[in-house]
Amino acid sequence: MVAEIICVGTELLLGDILNSNSQFLAKELASLGIPHYYQTVVGDNPDRIKQVLEIAVGRSQLLLFTGGLGPTPDDLTVETIADFFGVPLIERPEIIADIEQKFAQRGRTMSKSNRKQALIPEGAEILPNRTGSAPGIIWQPVPNVTVMTFPGVPAEMHLMWRETAVSYLQNNGWCSGTIYSRTLKFWGIAESALAEKVEGFLNLTNPTVAPYANHGEVKLRISAHAESEAVAKNLISPIEQQLRQIAGLDCYGADTDTLASTVGQLLLDRGENLSVAESCTGGGLGAMLTSIAGSSGYFWGGVISYDDRVKEKLLNVKPEDLTEFGAVSHQVAQQMAAGVRASLNTSWGLSITGIAGPGGGTDSKPVGLVYVGLAGPNDEIESFEYHFGDARTRDWIRNLSACTALDRLRRKILLAKVEKI
Amino acid sequence: MVAEIICVGTELLLGDILNSNSQFLAKELASLGIPHYYQTVVGDNPDRIKQVLEIAVGRSQLLLFTGGLGPTPDDLTVETIADFFGVPLIERPEIIADIEQKFAQRGRTMSKSNRKQALIPEGAEILPNRTGSAPGIIWQPVPNVTVMTFPGVPAEMHLMWRETAVSYLQNNGWCSGTIYSRTLKFWGIAESALAEKVEGFLNLTNPTVAPYANHGEVKLRISAHAESEAVAKNLISPIEQQLRQIAGLDCYGADTDTLASTVGQLLLDRGENLSVAESCTGGGLGAMLTSIAGSSGYFWGGVISYDDRVKEKLLNVKPEDLTEFGAVSHQVAQQMAAGVRASLNTSWGLSITGIAGPGGGTDSKPVGLVYVGLAGPNDEIESFEYHFGDARTRDWIRNLSACTALDRLRRKILLAKVEKI
Repeated sequence: MVAEIICVGTELLLGDILNSNSQFLAKELASLGIPHYYQTVVGDNPDRIKQVLEIAVGRSQLLLFTGGLGPTPDDLTVETIADFFGVPLIERPEIIADIEQKFAQRGRTMSKSNRKQALIPEGAEILPNRTGSAPGIIWQPVPNVTVMTFPGVPAEMHLMWRETAVSYLQNNGWCSGTIYSRTLKFWGIAESALAEKVEGFLNLTNPTVAPYANHGEVKLRISAHAESEAVAKNLISPIEQQLRQIAGLDCYGADTDTLASTVGQLLLDRGENLSVAESCTGGGLGAMLTSIAGSSGYFWGGVISYDDRVKEKLLNVKPEDLTEFGAVSHQVAQQMAAGVRASLNTSWGLSITGIAGPGGGTDSKPVGLVYVGLAGPNDEIESFEYHFGDARTRDWIRNLSACTALDRLRRKILLAKVEKI
Repeated sequence: MVAEIICVGTELLLGDILNSNSQFLAKELASLGIPHYYQTVVGDNPDRIKQVLEIAVGRSQLLLFTGGLGPTPDDLTVETIADFFGVPLIERPEIIADIEQKFAQRGRTMSKSNRKQALIPEGAEILPNRTGSAPGIIWQPVPNVTVMTFPGVPAEMHLMWRETAVSYLQNNGWCSGTIYSRTLKFWGIAESALAEKVEGFLNLTNPTVAPYANHGEVKLRISAHAESEAVAKNLISPIEQQLRQIAGLDCYGADTDTLASTVGQLLLDRGENLSVAESCTGGGLGAMLTSIAGSSGYFWGGVISYDDRVKEKLLNVKPEDLTEFGAVSHQVAQQMAAGVRASLNTSWGLSITGIAGPGGGTDSKPVGLVYVGLAGPNDEIESFEYHFGDARTRDWIRNLSACTALDRLRRKILLAKVEKI
């Protein structure tokens, strides 16, 4: 029982978009313990889609299609699959009703072209799409072949997979054992340094431990293959404990934890709250914090002081210090943090000021120079200097800045805890 | 003369990494005018690699392999290809010398396992790898089939492609003209509605026009195949003009334009500036605006008023209105926009207040309800109500909110322009 991923879309062949759907489905199949050996990309061309189907039917039993479910004439996936198996399309009134309702909610009328999305092969089940107009199908056109279709829009596809496809596969005997993974997340340590620290773990076979790095964050994925998730978790748990002990403060969480959620939990636990003052990140730190549902419990808001006049007016930064030291300096970072903390009356104030580039750098203040300021509950004020370098993109430097600021606050809180004990 | 991309690597089947190599090669092939119809991903398994080769040789003439060129036992690409064509591997001393030199430069000695990387099919040319230890090959094992191999590491692959592969393809008659694309971008219109408006264009053959949609943004890609980029642009230009005329204000830009860059350019052109007041987006609107280098020319900053106390203190929102109408209301959106505009003394003030979910919704104020407030240079104040629905994720609703706010300002400025004329 082998799956195969088939992504349909000329935009993939032209390189217009990155194929993140394959990666999503690949990860999901692995976690369900369903093997898959091939992924194919093909354009919006019925003859070539049929050739791909011919090959896939000969070597795989579960065919997962993404893309080509839209309302426009180049969206051909479902009709081509139906044609390949020689089965007619049937217009399903419940789909029309659903699309009409979705349009109505947004004060629009359904276009005629959307009727096409209600055509489903005879005998196929609808794979509901709660957020978009394109439903998928779950269909067994011949014995030993199950076809599922998903739209190419990643967010719609993810929801449909999680809400319907996974339980279908589990209930229909597709999942034999499971591959369960847990990913530990690190900030403030290089991948090579972490890999050396945990070298002995990298040769394990079950669970396996594998390092990954991406834009400053380092991860260790611990994966176990077992007959059930519970057994896999038991294999993973002692390894996780040992890795956490070795890594100490550099490990900030696991799986869906983010620096923002970890910091949020620490603040909630202590009944404290936070405000931010942002210059080069322009709101990115606040956006990161508020991406966590429930962040209103500890995040009060802040000031985006992109222009120096805003630093003076709303954060009480001294004009003479802006002149003498410049906006990107220890002095200004500290005054921003203290200023927002005082103005919003929060336990903590966290600030960022820096040069995100690509322009605006000088010899003494190059692109990538960033200061983080931190004002705390005991009126203590600190600041930290970082050199992220001019080889990184603007967005990368801004993201590193926001993550680093959160990590500073995390370490400060955790070290204060240790001192109290 | 058709190319095919074959990516080898079990890590791709496990979803551990995103397949950016396919996208890179797809773009490059398009710009060289070399068509390709299929992309395949296969694991580090000789039998399956051979099956993929069998299929590819039957339908394509240029096979581009990435991955599986490393020194470890699971790197099997080159030996499997040689085996498939029944050709022996030959150790090439110039490769050994090159690898030894690279190790020496880093003060290291070459590992025994690296000798494997010097094995090349008899008759194949070396495709040099300047930055890594794994060379590729350029090989015509049988008439009408050319094989190129590249390592999976994107940076190495890109250099090898640009430094050697491209000129090989150009000098050997592979490049017949070029495929050039331009993408028009739209906000505020559904894909189906836009497709109906431009229906007559969707059947063109050169250039082609194809619609795409993702998270509220709709795109039309105009692609032309011609002997040169200049000729392709001449084919595209009149179509672009006609499409822009039909779409009117719904088209906000093209290619690398974003709503933030488009709004920024409009403000720059008019010598105006902007401040923002954000509740549910928590800084995301400011982050979007400041992702544009040079945004300090028109964006002054703003207030993240996540907590109602911040709305009162820094934005002058009336406490009695917060009580009577709630934080998510026309009244508060308007006062936030007017408040930040007054406080920061900018031409425009733009605000967002809403319920991003997943919690916090009520019957009268459901998740997905968002108000955008806009205060302008003539002290005019407006607000707009949106229902993004509770089926979307928190991040999705926040992103839609920020984009919609920018689009509101864009339309306001453009309509004001028209009125002035």
